[in-house]
Amino acid sequence: MKFEEELRMLKEQMRFREKVDVPKGINNIVIAGMGGSGIAGNVFSELYSAKPVVLVGDYGLPSFASKKTLVISISYSGNTEEMLSVTKEAVKSGAHTVTISSGGELADHGDQHIRIPRRDLQPRSATGWMLMPLLYGFGIAGKKEADETYRLLESLDRNNAQCRAHAKAIASGEHIPVIYGSSPFKTIAYRWKTQFNENTKILAYSNSFPELNHNDTMALAQTYRKNNFYFFVFDSQNRKIAKRIAVTAKITKSRFNIIKPKGSSDVARLFYLLHYGDYVTYHLGLLRGIDPTDVSLIERLKKEIK
Amino acid sequence: MKFEEELRMLKEQMRFREKVDVPKGINNIVIAGMGGSGIAGNVFSELYSAKPVVLVGDYGLPSFASKKTLVISISYSGNTEEMLSVTKEAVKSGAHTVTISSGGELADHGDQHIRIPRRDLQPRSATGWMLMPLLYGFGIAGKKEADETYRLLESLDRNNAQCRAHAKAIASGEHIPVIYGSSPFKTIAYRWKTQFNENTKILAYSNSFPELNHNDTMALAQTYRKNNFYFFVFDSQNRKIAKRIAVTAKITKSRFNIIKPKGSSDVARLFYLLHYGDYVTYHLGLLRGIDPTDVSLIERLKKEIK
Repeated sequence: MKFEEELRMLKEQMRFREKVDVPKGINNIVIAGMGGSGIAGNVFSELYSAKPVVLVGDYGLPSFASKKTLVISISYSGNTEEMLSVTKEAVKSGAHTVTISSGGELADHGDQHIRIPRRDLQPRSATGWMLMPLLYGFGIAGKKEADETYRLLESLDRNNAQCRAHAKAIASGEHIPVIYGSSPFKTIAYRWKTQFNENTKILAYSNSFPELNHNDTMALAQTYRKNNFYFFVFDSQNRKIAKRIAVTAKITKSRFNIIKPKGSSDVARLFYLLHYGDYVTYHLGLLRGIDPTDVSLIERLKKEIK
Repeated sequence: MKFEEELRMLKEQMRFREKVDVPKGINNIVIAGMGGSGIAGNVFSELYSAKPVVLVGDYGLPSFASKKTLVISISYSGNTEEMLSVTKEAVKSGAHTVTISSGGELADHGDQHIRIPRRDLQPRSATGWMLMPLLYGFGIAGKKEADETYRLLESLDRNNAQCRAHAKAIASGEHIPVIYGSSPFKTIAYRWKTQFNENTKILAYSNSFPELNHNDTMALAQTYRKNNFYFFVFDSQNRKIAKRIAVTAKITKSRFNIIKPKGSSDVARLFYLLHYGDYVTYHLGLLRGIDPTDVSLIERLKKEIK
């Protein structure tokens, strides 16, 4: 599948209505996922705070897991080494286990398995399928939010000229992108970083307000190579954060490219921001003559470490 | 106080014996801290998994907090805006509250207050005072680990010529440092990043294995400006991770500067790595003619956002 077609499928994922069953009496939640499949858990943990959520992006299951824990393992392929290891430990611990995958070995495990469509997408192009079952299950999103998100994603699919303009600016200066988010879109800033890495094969970094005011701020004013970087900053509806953004730009004399999320719900805004980054990196990949879907090196690594 | 004297005080913090009282019947733990004071909670969460630990580096307390929650608020000054807001919410929620500070408004709150010495250090130079009470309280460290750590820190205070060599290489190439850690030292990689930002006023970034094998890896092989970066990688005792490091360096043709942690316990190794980064950034600050203790811009920001 061409990468542009792949991007256009994100909106279709808003029509996927499967949801995680949340059993009563659960004390805490573990969400396990790596790379493109790890985004869903991270986003969820920014939107949900009614129970402790612990993220696992590594081999082991935390030792607190018990029958009062809900463990959700996410892997698009269903064959990620780290996730299989975590899921088997979860089953042993007696935790209530949910697996989300398009098949693979993960589909054979779990009290509930959510089967997402296998369309030979990159896992990172399947965020809707992996995230929406969590948002529906915990009552964070419903049909209304999904419909609004569909319309916003469609509008970006039709017109992403602004994304292309950013890509041109980055390409012409051979800039290293730095993306600054803030709650509840810190993960989306990190998602942009990973999309730059995978779709354009360049280094990129992310951070978030207010944390960066305790470290990056000092560097922004005096670092060498500052002109080698290109700063994206997500606008915030939180007045304290908006003030921090403005003051940081002023006192460090930084040029922040502000990205304003559209949408009336957090869910719509986060997918809008996410998809905006998809298109910036898509266009930059084209300009660099890069195949965004080439992940041959990651495949080679998986073989060599076995 | 001269910054070098400040660094030499880290080992003395291993003699601080205060510990967090952990009440029975606690279901989960929230640790709140920003910037230099946030490191302690992050490190703790990598070493402890017997109960869910949720970190707060922002204004709000998670809504799950109840009388079965232990909330630990850490602020060296005791006056960090975000931490006061979280702590007041914690007291209202009925949570068992512990505050760790050298005084300030935070000292007036909490079922337990741990008063750490006020020596006009930067908060980031007081990590021992802020972290050890957590490690003692939860049985992760005792006198043995503290004594071993003291000796290792002292050896770095006496001889840090290797750190200086790294600093010279970075300065001569005007490199941007990138630090790759892995569990349980992911936070220490991030700590180095913040030390570069604050002590040397240059941009720097961190990531960790295995997560970076899902994103940075693709960029490392094909990015432009790769020679503008300087890569530090913490060696790992985990064979799977050590293999990942070696294979990643090989297939992306990257020059990784491997830092081998000394010490027989995780606690000793983590403080050794942390202090190693202190000295790399200290020397780089000197070479750049930078005052490492100058955080005037952060102070100005705090005033302007009020």
